[in-house]
Amino acid sequence: MKKLLTLASLAIVASAAFSQQALWGGTPLVSPQINPDNTVTFRCKAPKAKTVKITGDFLPENEIDIPNYGKYALPGTAELTEGKDGVWEFTTPAPLASEYYCYNLIIDGQRTIDPANVYINRDVATITNCFIISNEKGDKGDLYRVNDVPHGTVRHMWYNSPSLGMQRRLTVYTPAGYETSGKKYPVFYLLHGIGGDEEAWATQGRATQILDNLIAQGKAEPMIVVMTNGNISQHAAPGEGPEGMVSPNLALPKTMDGSFEKAFPEIVNFIDKTFRTKAQKQFRAIAGLSMGGFHSCHISKQYPELFGYVGLFSAAISKEQGDANGIYNDFDKKLATQFSAKNRPALYYIAIGKTDFLYKDNQELRKKLDDNKFPYVYKETDGGHIWRNWRIYLADFAPRLFK
Amino acid sequence: MKKLLTLASLAIVASAAFSQQALWGGTPLVSPQINPDNTVTFRCKAPKAKTVKITGDFLPENEIDIPNYGKYALPGTAELTEGKDGVWEFTTPAPLASEYYCYNLIIDGQRTIDPANVYINRDVATITNCFIISNEKGDKGDLYRVNDVPHGTVRHMWYNSPSLGMQRRLTVYTPAGYETSGKKYPVFYLLHGIGGDEEAWATQGRATQILDNLIAQGKAEPMIVVMTNGNISQHAAPGEGPEGMVSPNLALPKTMDGSFEKAFPEIVNFIDKTFRTKAQKQFRAIAGLSMGGFHSCHISKQYPELFGYVGLFSAAISKEQGDANGIYNDFDKKLATQFSAKNRPALYYIAIGKTDFLYKDNQELRKKLDDNKFPYVYKETDGGHIWRNWRIYLADFAPRLFK
Repeated sequence: MKKLLTLASLAIVASAAFSQQALWGGTPLVSPQINPDNTVTFRCKAPKAKTVKITGDFLPENEIDIPNYGKYALPGTAELTEGKDGVWEFTTPAPLASEYYCYNLIIDGQRTIDPANVYINRDVATITNCFIISNEKGDKGDLYRVNDVPHGTVRHMWYNSPSLGMQRRLTVYTPAGYETSGKKYPVFYLLHGIGGDEEAWATQGRATQILDNLIAQGKAEPMIVVMTNGNISQHAAPGEGPEGMVSPNLALPKTMDGSFEKAFPEIVNFIDKTFRTKAQKQFRAIAGLSMGGFHSCHISKQYPELFGYVGLFSAAISKEQGDANGIYNDFDKKLATQFSAKNRPALYYIAIGKTDFLYKDNQELRKKLDDNKFPYVYKETDGGHIWRNWRIYLADFAPRLFK
Repeated sequence: MKKLLTLASLAIVASAAFSQQALWGGTPLVSPQINPDNTVTFRCKAPKAKTVKITGDFLPENEIDIPNYGKYALPGTAELTEGKDGVWEFTTPAPLASEYYCYNLIIDGQRTIDPANVYINRDVATITNCFIISNEKGDKGDLYRVNDVPHGTVRHMWYNSPSLGMQRRLTVYTPAGYETSGKKYPVFYLLHGIGGDEEAWATQGRATQILDNLIAQGKAEPMIVVMTNGNISQHAAPGEGPEGMVSPNLALPKTMDGSFEKAFPEIVNFIDKTFRTKAQKQFRAIAGLSMGGFHSCHISKQYPELFGYVGLFSAAISKEQGDANGIYNDFDKKLATQFSAKNRPALYYIAIGKTDFLYKDNQELRKKLDDNKFPYVYKETDGGHIWRNWRIYLADFAPRLFK
């Protein structure tokens, strides 16, 4: 046993070489600490710092002025207080609601991660820490966390795109039991927003957990979920393609020029060839957030025979017409074809937050649908263009599919 | 177009809320910057800091004294120099060799990540940044990076362990073409070290890239690689199981009490049932690093009919005898059975670094094998108990399999 203890000790040393953890003795900081009343305490040892702040989506929002735009709400900030041994601390003044939260620390003006929290998200070029509050009442945190239920498989895989001339990466979720059931499944295509990639929905979106949990509760049908990469200049998410570990770029070329939409049937064909799918329109859904909602709108009306269910989550609906690929032109005409008796989707779903900067555009789309008596389901929530809303929309949309 | 530009701008704002990126104007820092001569420049904006240092596995090692043990080498440290506008900078004095590297910044004594680098690894409870130097000469960096070659699929999935009474998570790599080839494949079980989990080999270990590249070059046979979780008190890697986002723990219970080894055939059965495998000993390999080498040694001799190829990478070989599960007892007798004419593996492979703290133990194992005329392949490298060596051993071991 002595040898094994030595091994563990040395592994701790080797690890401590790159960590905050005390070598021997000393108490490692716990941060975040979720208290029994669901207040949360954050701690950071920074004896030489002048100020330590925290910014996170659980703090009251700050409004900033954006030139040519107006007010925009940003996550709020709070100050940590220095205590014994240079340990700074902040406890939320009230319990936090059941939810998945993100935050950063700001040490002397430098935004960084909480060194005591290994749970991290990358959203485009932004690294944040995360944690979950769950209350065992079936609320959001319970839906977003990993529960002891049957789990699906999440795979990163590659398809060949002849039209884009490259191999491209996908994230594909198959429900628990897929590998051995022999059954065929419906497919839900789930698209990210601008700057995002094929990893976004499975990380901040908690899509895997939401699907596992909804299926286990009998609220959603077992389905395959395909998370695509809508940045057609990319092979894959940053760091996962032959581009190497380059700096992620929000302003990727050609994300909204019709190329991705035009080439989308390649992905559907790949999935139908590779997985046991129910390869008919009534077993196929598409939805996306922001730019992904824009993509879903245009793909579903360009190919009205493909998708029986369409979801626009905070969609970047645009009145722009015309593109080299002929996807965005004749909007009204194509919409009329999509909603004709022959093609009409079983569900057309629009969701938007009350303070989303795209709120007005989405109301204009609703008016167009209303004027034409094109049926749709509308969901409106508090808040703006944020992941909290997109998780809500996914959890609301998925149970409506394939029934 | 204006609307789309607004969308991009607002997305940048929304993202900037949680990032270092300048809102409008200003030049975001580039760090690390790999210079044309393969020196590397690191930058950090910290105008209020007194000192900014960097620690990484490309810097000359520092030796520390460990009580009851002696000298131990840790990654070295260098100081960044403050320049204009509070931007600190350090350039490596010499070009870096082709390799995958990890590092942290230390701002006023606080170890943290490089805020300009979104590429991050978690090793147990340690978060580091990473980057790759490649020289297009087929050296290590080229083997560890994503190249434009056919890519395998990497999936996180769950198996049921009746003996351990829980669902447990695995990482399974299938080679390019698996989904559609209809062929059967050999299987390589690849085990992590103490404190690690089913994600370790696919992140720091670069196992996916190494296999993709070796297979594309025709140097390794197309094979399935199964990366298990050897911590039998865990369902899954930290944050991925129903335990929630708890602090990772190096000293997990029961990792070396024989339970994992005893239950290992459950995993083999699950894989053979779930994938198109060649389910015979001559098409099955097992290897692991450190504790995973210890596990591989014990599993392969406990079940001599299972594995035709065995790899011990910096293995935590132990002379301890006896455990409640009866796995570690009768070591010599079981080894003799494993190496009997009937059972002898096609390859028994031992690799260790010259300065590894387990060097002596591995030499004792070699002596035992030599004394008994049990054949094995031995590889010795510079350096100690580090990922650099484990990647080398994997890249050396995989091409020897199933031929």
